[in-house]
Amino acid sequence: MTSAGGEADARRVLDRCDELAAVSASPDGIERVHLSPEHARVNEVVAAWMAQAGLRTRTDQAGNLWGRLEGREPGLPALVLGSHLDTVPDAGRYDGILGVLSAVEVVHRLRPRAAALPFAVEVVAFSDEEGARFATALMGSSAVAGTWREEWWDRADAAGTTVREAAEAFGLDPARIGEAARRPEDLLGYLELHIEQGPHLEAADRALGVVTSIAGARRFTGRVVGEARHAGGTPYPRRRDALVGACEVVLAVERLARERDGIATVGRLQAFPGGVNVVPGHVEFSLDVRDEHDADRDALVEAIRSSAEEDCAARGLTLELTEVHSARGVYCDEALQRSVTAGIAATGDTAPLRLWSRAGHDAMALAAVTPVAMIFVRCEDGVSHAPDERVTLADVAVGLDAFEAAVLDVARTRSAG
Amino acid sequence: MTSAGGEADARRVLDRCDELAAVSASPDGIERVHLSPEHARVNEVVAAWMAQAGLRTRTDQAGNLWGRLEGREPGLPALVLGSHLDTVPDAGRYDGILGVLSAVEVVHRLRPRAAALPFAVEVVAFSDEEGARFATALMGSSAVAGTWREEWWDRADAAGTTVREAAEAFGLDPARIGEAARRPEDLLGYLELHIEQGPHLEAADRALGVVTSIAGARRFTGRVVGEARHAGGTPYPRRRDALVGACEVVLAVERLARERDGIATVGRLQAFPGGVNVVPGHVEFSLDVRDEHDADRDALVEAIRSSAEEDCAARGLTLELTEVHSARGVYCDEALQRSVTAGIAATGDTAPLRLWSRAGHDAMALAAVTPVAMIFVRCEDGVSHAPDERVTLADVAVGLDAFEAAVLDVARTRSAG
Repeated sequence: MTSAGGEADARRVLDRCDELAAVSASPDGIERVHLSPEHARVNEVVAAWMAQAGLRTRTDQAGNLWGRLEGREPGLPALVLGSHLDTVPDAGRYDGILGVLSAVEVVHRLRPRAAALPFAVEVVAFSDEEGARFATALMGSSAVAGTWREEWWDRADAAGTTVREAAEAFGLDPARIGEAARRPEDLLGYLELHIEQGPHLEAADRALGVVTSIAGARRFTGRVVGEARHAGGTPYPRRRDALVGACEVVLAVERLARERDGIATVGRLQAFPGGVNVVPGHVEFSLDVRDEHDADRDALVEAIRSSAEEDCAARGLTLELTEVHSARGVYCDEALQRSVTAGIAATGDTAPLRLWSRAGHDAMALAAVTPVAMIFVRCEDGVSHAPDERVTLADVAVGLDAFEAAVLDVARTRSAG
Repeated sequence: MTSAGGEADARRVLDRCDELAAVSASPDGIERVHLSPEHARVNEVVAAWMAQAGLRTRTDQAGNLWGRLEGREPGLPALVLGSHLDTVPDAGRYDGILGVLSAVEVVHRLRPRAAALPFAVEVVAFSDEEGARFATALMGSSAVAGTWREEWWDRADAAGTTVREAAEAFGLDPARIGEAARRPEDLLGYLELHIEQGPHLEAADRALGVVTSIAGARRFTGRVVGEARHAGGTPYPRRRDALVGACEVVLAVERLARERDGIATVGRLQAFPGGVNVVPGHVEFSLDVRDEHDADRDALVEAIRSSAEEDCAARGLTLELTEVHSARGVYCDEALQRSVTAGIAATGDTAPLRLWSRAGHDAMALAAVTPVAMIFVRCEDGVSHAPDERVTLADVAVGLDAFEAAVLDVARTRSAG
């Protein structure tokens, strides 16, 4: 059950996703990281689309792109709709992007009714959600929430460029990062539409779902240090092979997470110095740990740490595990969840699926400054962070209808309240 | 028991090793790969030292540097002394380099007696022994042995540059690679001095050893392919995590090699796409397998392959294992071994330790065209392919004496024969 213009609007959203997919640092896939030339380019393209939709645009000191539509009078607190435009390496074209472009489309639809809205509507395209460049996620939304950390300025990417240098090259002024923070009194709440990135909606045969909470990830960089030696000349008793030790750690991460019903992933791992005939002297890797409840997740982290230390010590290796990111799990706002539920109900699914998000989202950071809620859109086979991320035109169309109806439900309850 | 000028000569050799160590692609360590600007630079420096020692120098079409000292008449077949100047990443300063510079020093000593030599003496500095750049070892010495393979031209380094492009940029003419091949009738044999790269001489309290044979390595590039997916959103039953599978392979490589008393090493391994929150979709790694006897080594390769295929299949992953290098084990020439033994005996160690080389050497390739033998020099704690490779001044001094005496023993037996 889709609205009249629904499929055409959804087609425009998907075409725009395709257009942004071409803005990539890699010729073979999609890669668009924080404060890169590709970031600047998509901000420019999306700003033009925002302007067409009637939004007044600006870029803040964290590189986030904003657009504002005033409500029945200027200067009202804003209901913010949005998501992010940055990607992981070799990404899909919908994670984050679909949420931003759907928000622009929803504003385009709402514009004729803006004079009746008891709030302003803003659309935000966050600059860094994935953390692919500086190994720190949610930089863009943290700046907006006022939880930017000074030490982030000195984080460096793989080429040694720091956040500070990248921000300056992007045309931002690090001294003014505080200006990106929004005051709670200027915000009504934050609504984010996002692909599910999991298989649950598909398994339940539903296009949309209401997010109840967002699990908080903890992320670490790990380093196993042994001794680089000649692969031929070094007998096993003399070896301190950092890679063999790191592989035991990776297997323990999977085993412990499965045993405890959590999720833990080593996504990045590389052996050094990397000579074909050299016993690896050290290994660098990443670790990402999640669970529905923060306490379970923290217990899993400690189980992994103690198992990994034991494995490494047995091989004469040292292990360093440094936390680079920690997000508390966030519960979505009850009133906004009701509006999302009402929005989905308006499309015909009167008892929508409720589910918790295993993936992190900008909404987690925003929760520090304003109530948040999320709508999930079904994606094919739960695939995300990969080139074959897929959504259907029909699901996007019904998603736009639900998103718009949710915003109108917020307006209705606000007016009533 | 070192000759009169021994320590001074050894000091010069070690000083020159230090000087070459500064010619590196990396500011933090030693890295000097085939056909690089650093390769050109060390060829230039060593050519000047060769000229000072009385050698007539040239560079062949494989980038190998040669110097020739005529014997009692011009044009005699040559006894070739040498080793290589290329390195692994983050290398030590003696592996290969010590053999080249010792050979130059030995020629410097022999020069006054050249008119009495029944052969020419040549020194060769091979361009590629380690294979660090193009994942194919012994390219330089294979060209000399006439066993260059046409398909090598299309191998690419990490930046996508092929051997052909690199050779042309170096000023070589790929069409003329055949000119680098030496005719067997122009060669008497090949003698190589090299650090042991193992702990056996140190354990036996000997400065020098006679090499009886060189184990042949087989090398593979491996690729485990699964599916890149979101780390949060993908439950374990839906994952096909290429890294977890590759880690099982790495552990099996160590276990099987230890069980069978062989040596197998995964030196290089990297997970892709490498996002901190992405389940790895594929992993690339290297595998190096050695054993004293080729048949045992081949059986170990098959055991590893079948175990790895089983591990990967169980996880829904595919495994590709592509052979990129295969060297037959080589037995050192009996007559040249006797000359090496006589050379070491002349320094006072009348019953020198005999040992097989676990590491590959240029001598393996040269054996296809001329008899070969090797002298091993003790190194500290068996360390090589690492910055803390160490030899002592005293060991290098006695090594130079033995090397010179071995050449003179060849001259004596040739004259007698």
